[in-house]
Amino acid sequence: MTSLKPAVNPSATPPSFAGPAAPAPGAIAALHPLRLDQVRLDDGGLLGRWRRRNAEETLPHCLERLESSGNLGNLRAAADGTGREFAGMWFADSDVYKTLEAVLWELAATDDSSLRGFAEDTIGLLARAQQADGYLNSYFTLAEPDQRWVKPVWSHELYCAGHLIQAAVAAGRTGAGDKLVEVARRFADLLVERFSEVEEVCGHPEIETALAELYRLTGHRPYLDLARRFLDLRGHGLLPHGRFGPRYHQDHVPPREAREVAGHSVRQLYLLAGMVDVAVETGDRALLDAAGRLWDDAFRTRTYVTGAHGSRHRDEAYGDPYELPPDRAYAETCASIASFHVSWRLLLATGQARYADELERVLYNAVAPAVSQDGRHFFYSNPLQLRTGHANAGEEAAGHRLPWYSCACCPPNIARLMASLPGYLATGDADGLQIHLYATATLEAGPARVEMRTAYPWQGRVELAVTSDSSEPWTLALRVPSWCAAYSVLVDGEPARAAVDDGYLRLTRVWGSSTSVVLDLTMPVRQIRPHPRVDAVRGCVTLARGPLAYCLEQHDLPEGTVLEDVRLHRDGPFQAAEGDAAPIVITASGSVLDTGTTPLYDDRRERGGPRTSPLELTAVPYFLWGNRSEGPMRVWIPVADAG
Amino acid sequence: MTSLKPAVNPSATPPSFAGPAAPAPGAIAALHPLRLDQVRLDDGGLLGRWRRRNAEETLPHCLERLESSGNLGNLRAAADGTGREFAGMWFADSDVYKTLEAVLWELAATDDSSLRGFAEDTIGLLARAQQADGYLNSYFTLAEPDQRWVKPVWSHELYCAGHLIQAAVAAGRTGAGDKLVEVARRFADLLVERFSEVEEVCGHPEIETALAELYRLTGHRPYLDLARRFLDLRGHGLLPHGRFGPRYHQDHVPPREAREVAGHSVRQLYLLAGMVDVAVETGDRALLDAAGRLWDDAFRTRTYVTGAHGSRHRDEAYGDPYELPPDRAYAETCASIASFHVSWRLLLATGQARYADELERVLYNAVAPAVSQDGRHFFYSNPLQLRTGHANAGEEAAGHRLPWYSCACCPPNIARLMASLPGYLATGDADGLQIHLYATATLEAGPARVEMRTAYPWQGRVELAVTSDSSEPWTLALRVPSWCAAYSVLVDGEPARAAVDDGYLRLTRVWGSSTSVVLDLTMPVRQIRPHPRVDAVRGCVTLARGPLAYCLEQHDLPEGTVLEDVRLHRDGPFQAAEGDAAPIVITASGSVLDTGTTPLYDDRRERGGPRTSPLELTAVPYFLWGNRSEGPMRVWIPVADAG
Repeated sequence: MTSLKPAVNPSATPPSFAGPAAPAPGAIAALHPLRLDQVRLDDGGLLGRWRRRNAEETLPHCLERLESSGNLGNLRAAADGTGREFAGMWFADSDVYKTLEAVLWELAATDDSSLRGFAEDTIGLLARAQQADGYLNSYFTLAEPDQRWVKPVWSHELYCAGHLIQAAVAAGRTGAGDKLVEVARRFADLLVERFSEVEEVCGHPEIETALAELYRLTGHRPYLDLARRFLDLRGHGLLPHGRFGPRYHQDHVPPREAREVAGHSVRQLYLLAGMVDVAVETGDRALLDAAGRLWDDAFRTRTYVTGAHGSRHRDEAYGDPYELPPDRAYAETCASIASFHVSWRLLLATGQARYADELERVLYNAVAPAVSQDGRHFFYSNPLQLRTGHANAGEEAAGHRLPWYSCACCPPNIARLMASLPGYLATGDADGLQIHLYATATLEAGPARVEMRTAYPWQGRVELAVTSDSSEPWTLALRVPSWCAAYSVLVDGEPARAAVDDGYLRLTRVWGSSTSVVLDLTMPVRQIRPHPRVDAVRGCVTLARGPLAYCLEQHDLPEGTVLEDVRLHRDGPFQAAEGDAAPIVITASGSVLDTGTTPLYDDRRERGGPRTSPLELTAVPYFLWGNRSEGPMRVWIPVADAG
Repeated sequence: MTSLKPAVNPSATPPSFAGPAAPAPGAIAALHPLRLDQVRLDDGGLLGRWRRRNAEETLPHCLERLESSGNLGNLRAAADGTGREFAGMWFADSDVYKTLEAVLWELAATDDSSLRGFAEDTIGLLARAQQADGYLNSYFTLAEPDQRWVKPVWSHELYCAGHLIQAAVAAGRTGAGDKLVEVARRFADLLVERFSEVEEVCGHPEIETALAELYRLTGHRPYLDLARRFLDLRGHGLLPHGRFGPRYHQDHVPPREAREVAGHSVRQLYLLAGMVDVAVETGDRALLDAAGRLWDDAFRTRTYVTGAHGSRHRDEAYGDPYELPPDRAYAETCASIASFHVSWRLLLATGQARYADELERVLYNAVAPAVSQDGRHFFYSNPLQLRTGHANAGEEAAGHRLPWYSCACCPPNIARLMASLPGYLATGDADGLQIHLYATATLEAGPARVEMRTAYPWQGRVELAVTSDSSEPWTLALRVPSWCAAYSVLVDGEPARAAVDDGYLRLTRVWGSSTSVVLDLTMPVRQIRPHPRVDAVRGCVTLARGPLAYCLEQHDLPEGTVLEDVRLHRDGPFQAAEGDAAPIVITASGSVLDTGTTPLYDDRRERGGPRTSPLELTAVPYFLWGNRSEGPMRVWIPVADAG
């Protein structure tokens, strides 16, 4: 099987052409990402359409907004000393960096002249805006030049530096030239000089994963050492805390001792990504275990059924265990993206299917809902319920997707994930190829070429044409998602006898010039029940089919029916359409309560419950909600006998 | 019956000796408050003990804290020009005013030399700190003298002025001298001069009710006109709004057009109090209807079972209809006090029992829980559930009462309500006397003298010895609370045939030298169910007995039992102790779930629910929670069959 190693395992390839979060040689790594040019998503499938919409709509939209919101103007003023006032949030540079990263990933798949022009112009601009010593931050250059590094708790200077570095890593990994890498390295070198001796950390984690990634790209050890230093210094009360308290910034306990996720959820998850990166690159199994423990805590007690994180609007924070309100879910889009990044890193480190299951859940049910069908409107917060009478509070608790936000962290974050999607479909290791996400796509890695055709997630049938030019056996591992209770697999038309081993069906053979593999994942309508401690959705179920969570929308109810009065008949029947005409909706049996005279609180037992009348229900995939009209919606549906 | 009028109806008495919110002659008023010296609370009863604890513990504690937190120092610096820096919140003067108001109400019942000294010193200090033109605000005097009236949205200048005026009204109504009234009038006259022509309002309502009250005390019409002007100007977008938006300040719609309570709940309720005051004094029935409509909206869709308001920590705000999470209830103590004040005003205006019912509910279940048994620790936010693993976030979501807060609005607000409690027990009208709150107390008003003896709220028996020196008949109206499904009444030992009329049992007769009336309100254990739209507590009930809501506390569970796993057996049995040995606890039958292996989300129907084992439950009055130990607590208890 050694013949496969050099090809599928990219750790042996030049690191500048590895996939997302590719471990360096010598790292703890069960699996290795494919390069972006080894995976081609077909536009006919859902993921391919998302990637394409991102390229054709979301990225141009982001470019327009970076112009109209002044982000690019800030950098131009910093570069050219025009004296223009700084516009927007003081961390507005990070929106430019994330968009640039997205564009660079995208350019690995499509050569679009306008995107290429943006990349070239912006890289040139950044080089000009960078100061002589390597410092680069348009806010502090323009607005508070004497405050550089003075306010670590809120300045976001290292956070912005981190996103610059991530963009540079994308440039390096897609072969988009060295100029941006040089800019990033000059800044990173300054950081090493400035922070290697002092005891300081940044209020918003991000630099840790960025420096570890830059180390992976460059092999320059001081970057990794500084990332580790930032992790080791955290949790010792170095950050001055105001009202937000140390938990908000994950400065209440050293990361490797933490037992619970806490505070601002995006900060927590970015920190977790950095923990995994540093752990695997330094061979620090205790730190990796600590990261796994935090992941476990989040997923056992503080994750929404959609995969989203963050139960509180106040401080954009994790709540107490099992505190998962659907209506006040904060579920920030950036937290979902960060969760995706963390799960990917833990998947690479361990090879365990549960992390890949989570990639799938959060992608379809927490990242995807944040983008409108037109690719130009976005949710910042992703509630699982919108009530009748919801008072739309603008950016704070939007009932509809907005074209942009005053704090515009989410849209370009979506853009960089969607642009890099091909990088997350599959991995390689010494034994062969592992497919984690199903989509219509072509994978070519070393001796393996796999043509995958599927109507996933609408149908569970995945057809793979496998070609190999190796005479050695290797293993094709196909993930059987944890939601799937029944599946079948045919190899060249014959039932294959292969058991599922830790979530993967593993087919090992000498693959000839063309082998057909058909995996069929049965997709009945499922009812998901919450843990009894999740008070907020007691007596409710979420309808699901395949990887998709469903919801009810006011749009599908008869005029005058209040969504909060609707109840689901648990015993069915449930019906999902045949075929793959997307989107497949679920029809279910339900009823509606007549609550016209019901008091808010009732202590008279002799009074029965409200009268009911029957109602046929239509549930739609949650990721599509709010695209037809604005109105009440709910993911968790009360069942008829639960009040 | 006219013989009673001059005595019971204080509208005919000098307004400077009327009770709380006493309407002026000519106002819309069904009922009139008694003067504080007409009601004597006996220390043997619960309300009397609360009043006494307030006098002996809470008030001295507030005095200490006003000193140590710098509130008094601010005023001294403003008065004496010592150049000391301003300490604390920019509206810190309001804590002094509220404490002073409390002390003045208290001095109507008890002559305590230390309290009297505080009152005299503080009134003198205020007179010295007041500027030549009447302006009085230590923050703007010391810290931003050039910013006077410049920042109406956040300055709280009119808010602070309002609390000064309220203290002065208490001085006037308790006959505590004119000096404070003079200070307040000088400031109020400045306000009339400054604001009667410009179009400006304050970001935090309070001035409206204060000016109306000052009008009641003084009869000076420009105060009332200015209060009305502030109401009329509100809701027209005069306040510049940042992230908080106009709803936060109730500036999104003119108050008289509003259909829903919205935004910061304390601001909303203070505004509502002002609306009622202005409406009744100006005879504006449309405005009174608008206030009633907002009250209805709050109580139909946005009030906790404890009577508390405010569903969101974020912006300390009302939520959407039926959004009533128990764990993240903000339920600010000041909002409960404000709700008490609003209900009192609507009770006086209309005479309707539902407002008195609400006085009782909010007092026992939302105001009282905010004070520790020692009278020196307080909740700012009053959650209805504290989870296992709750991360105590200091002031933000305290799991235990704190001695003070950086924003210390609540403790002195509690103090002023507790000190004025006697004023809310009963009212008078042309027909006689109405008793709204039961307590061991003596009422003397005009021809009526009522000695009331009761172990309420522990037992529902209320014994009244009624004496009258009038030969005319008058009506003693006794409230039969809405929670009470069965009662009996004896007059001189004989069953009385009197029906309940709008929540009051009305006994009309010529009362002799001594008549015994015994009202017996049956107090079985009740189970309160939520409206089906209140998702957050679906499948739960609150145990209640009499006016008290009960809760479960970790303290009463066996070691190792997790409160979130406890379930209640709805069919009982339930047992409350006999006698009046307070506090009376409820024992109930329940069970505990074994959730050791239960996943967060489960989509396999074939798996049954967790195994259960039986458990006897002990529920304690919610207002006493957190006094024995700190730990998980819940008001809403899941019933055994609801998941």
